[in-house]
Amino acid sequence: MSDQVRQQALAARAASRVLAATSAEVRNQALEAIAAALEANRERILAANAEDLKAGEQDGLASPLLKRLDLSGSKFASTVEMVRSVTAQPDPLDQTQKATELQAQLYLYRVTVPIGVIGVVFESRPDALVQIAALCLKSGNAVLLKGGREATMTNQTLAEVMCQATSDILPEGWMVLLEGREEVRALLDQEGLVDLIIPRGGNEFVQYIMNHTKIPVMGHADGVCHVYVDASADIDKAVPIAVDSKIGYVAACNAAETLLVHAAIAEQFMARAVEQLTAKGVLIRGDARTVALAESIGAVTPATQIDWSTEYLDYILSIKIVDSADEAIAHINEYGSNHTDTIVAEDPAAVRAFLRGVDSASVMHNASTRFADGFRYGLGAEVGISTNRLHSRGPVGLEGLVIYKYILKGDGHIVDSYDGYDGAAPLPFTHRPLDQHWQA
Amino acid sequence: MSDQVRQQALAARAASRVLAATSAEVRNQALEAIAAALEANRERILAANAEDLKAGEQDGLASPLLKRLDLSGSKFASTVEMVRSVTAQPDPLDQTQKATELQAQLYLYRVTVPIGVIGVVFESRPDALVQIAALCLKSGNAVLLKGGREATMTNQTLAEVMCQATSDILPEGWMVLLEGREEVRALLDQEGLVDLIIPRGGNEFVQYIMNHTKIPVMGHADGVCHVYVDASADIDKAVPIAVDSKIGYVAACNAAETLLVHAAIAEQFMARAVEQLTAKGVLIRGDARTVALAESIGAVTPATQIDWSTEYLDYILSIKIVDSADEAIAHINEYGSNHTDTIVAEDPAAVRAFLRGVDSASVMHNASTRFADGFRYGLGAEVGISTNRLHSRGPVGLEGLVIYKYILKGDGHIVDSYDGYDGAAPLPFTHRPLDQHWQA
Repeated sequence: MSDQVRQQALAARAASRVLAATSAEVRNQALEAIAAALEANRERILAANAEDLKAGEQDGLASPLLKRLDLSGSKFASTVEMVRSVTAQPDPLDQTQKATELQAQLYLYRVTVPIGVIGVVFESRPDALVQIAALCLKSGNAVLLKGGREATMTNQTLAEVMCQATSDILPEGWMVLLEGREEVRALLDQEGLVDLIIPRGGNEFVQYIMNHTKIPVMGHADGVCHVYVDASADIDKAVPIAVDSKIGYVAACNAAETLLVHAAIAEQFMARAVEQLTAKGVLIRGDARTVALAESIGAVTPATQIDWSTEYLDYILSIKIVDSADEAIAHINEYGSNHTDTIVAEDPAAVRAFLRGVDSASVMHNASTRFADGFRYGLGAEVGISTNRLHSRGPVGLEGLVIYKYILKGDGHIVDSYDGYDGAAPLPFTHRPLDQHWQA
Repeated sequence: MSDQVRQQALAARAASRVLAATSAEVRNQALEAIAAALEANRERILAANAEDLKAGEQDGLASPLLKRLDLSGSKFASTVEMVRSVTAQPDPLDQTQKATELQAQLYLYRVTVPIGVIGVVFESRPDALVQIAALCLKSGNAVLLKGGREATMTNQTLAEVMCQATSDILPEGWMVLLEGREEVRALLDQEGLVDLIIPRGGNEFVQYIMNHTKIPVMGHADGVCHVYVDASADIDKAVPIAVDSKIGYVAACNAAETLLVHAAIAEQFMARAVEQLTAKGVLIRGDARTVALAESIGAVTPATQIDWSTEYLDYILSIKIVDSADEAIAHINEYGSNHTDTIVAEDPAAVRAFLRGVDSASVMHNASTRFADGFRYGLGAEVGISTNRLHSRGPVGLEGLVIYKYILKGDGHIVDSYDGYDGAAPLPFTHRPLDQHWQA
């Protein structure tokens, strides 16, 4: 099994070199061929999907999981539509990020190129397969994919249709579907052949991936997001933001898990917010001051230490009363997951301190945490949300799938004549920025 | 020991949060205080350095290592000068990389911030301590440093002087010198507190670091660089480029280790190149065709398979004759280290194929591989050269020490009213690029 995955990774590496040299036209042509083939094979794909759904029902799969697995109805059309929207994005490759004249006739360009080979491991949603393969193709990366067991038939059919559709256009091995758990383990061992692993799924799943590979992993395990309501907050903004951040979609990683409220505004704010939240079915776990305050408002149970770092992904919210913006910032940096946090405030000093001081991928002012999303941020489709501190942070689009190479064009230049590097002689480098793009 | 390093890493993390919020003025003031303190403590630092040199001589340290250890003479002045040149660089923080209007009164900014806490492990050169600490400070990162045993006294004194100089300006713990091998091991275990490890040293040293940590490592183990002389090459450019790439400084990672020569030009090129290289004391190891060709030219010994992936860092060069640019590209991608490779050619098609097809951090045309260097590339001082495929590639300057955060400024915006995300309703996002910078 491990040998087979190694062969597939080697083939993907070889394919990635061919892909890297393709033009945007060829990659877009391949994407359109995929979109057309998905449409032409709609019945076949949905039949496979129906088999997975039937097996899922027999296995007693929870209904939200069944819903995510289901590709029928508008989901199929939106999956195809998504491929076409990736096609329509500007080419992320061959972009000159910087151009510098080093010396007369010696020009340096920093130009975007694909990362190489991406390994993607995702849970039940089969549309994720299509989306991520499309993003990898658009950015010139080869991709090894492993989907959830529940979607086996759907994923197989999708991968088959996509590979067939591109067989005349792209190098074989640019996209490979892996199957079985041992193959995931083998994939995680392909250091040197696989450049990046992107896991898409729940906390434990992502944590497992992160703990079992030496390949860089881009993603996030936790999304412990906060709403901080400052003393200067406008209650008419604070209440809707708190409610939206919590209940917009409780299973999302950008949903709020903890509400921090300044003591000076706590009574006034809680009266309205707790009422609205509990009316929507949210259970509240408060610190001692919140519990005391809430006696007159409604049912709040005491929070324990573990609540402050828990991602509920459910209709549960922890609330803590703080005495300053600084205390809120310190709490978020200690218990949060560097994902997304928002301040509701009118005082510019508190806003500034929060936006600077909170060490998260997305920091917000007077806006719901639910905006942290690649589509809403205008990145087009999204590979995922990263809490890494290197390469890409926050919602990651096509830009997160590229890196750059330096291209130096000379005319017989050698270093010797310009040296003095370790000595005192002045160097004749001009280091003049150029308004020029690299032309292949 | 491990507990102590953990405490230091925790302190560095706390310091990094304060540092991240400092203005460019404060960071520059601290850098100037360091430069002034180094000058004021010149005698003390050089006395410590003299002790290290004496101990090194007694221990029979090789003379190139002693030379690298020596801070006296112009080396001291250039070390101080380097701090001032870092001060003079533009602020890498608070730069707005992108600004987008998402909706009326809802603005998204992507703004540069420090990575956080950097661990640096370096071999004998004590000036590296000053350089890397200065770059980390300029970019708002806290830094844990561990230098070579041979430079213990020098490093201690330098760190003491630098910490004292900044004690009134920066948070304690922003820069910590670690000592002893167990502390390096403990540093490599500080996942979650240390965000990036930068190793500076020889191949085995870097390989050891890469194999013993789960923290991302930025750097390179090998520098197996190539010069490819195409059939279309101008011999008057090819010979100096081959010679300069090989012997400019043989111990550098950007020195060439293998020369690939197109068969059509081999006889003509070799006649001149082999003569010049052997005259400079370079030993040549050739493939069978090179050996056969060289019978009439000079002493070439046969290369073995292992030569093609060996970084000699010495007056040794392997030579292989190829029949096409494609064969050269395939050889480089198979045996190289994705560091720096150059083509000497006048045929635009060969040049294009090479620059696109060679999968290295720096690819060059008609220029010496020795140009691959942060200073020569115009990046100012250099943290190192990266063969990673994420975040930073090639010579890495201040830009490689920063990442970004997303800052979203709204006015009470919630997602709910704009949703339809999983449905069919059109979203009212404007996603209009803004020519606007984020103001704290």
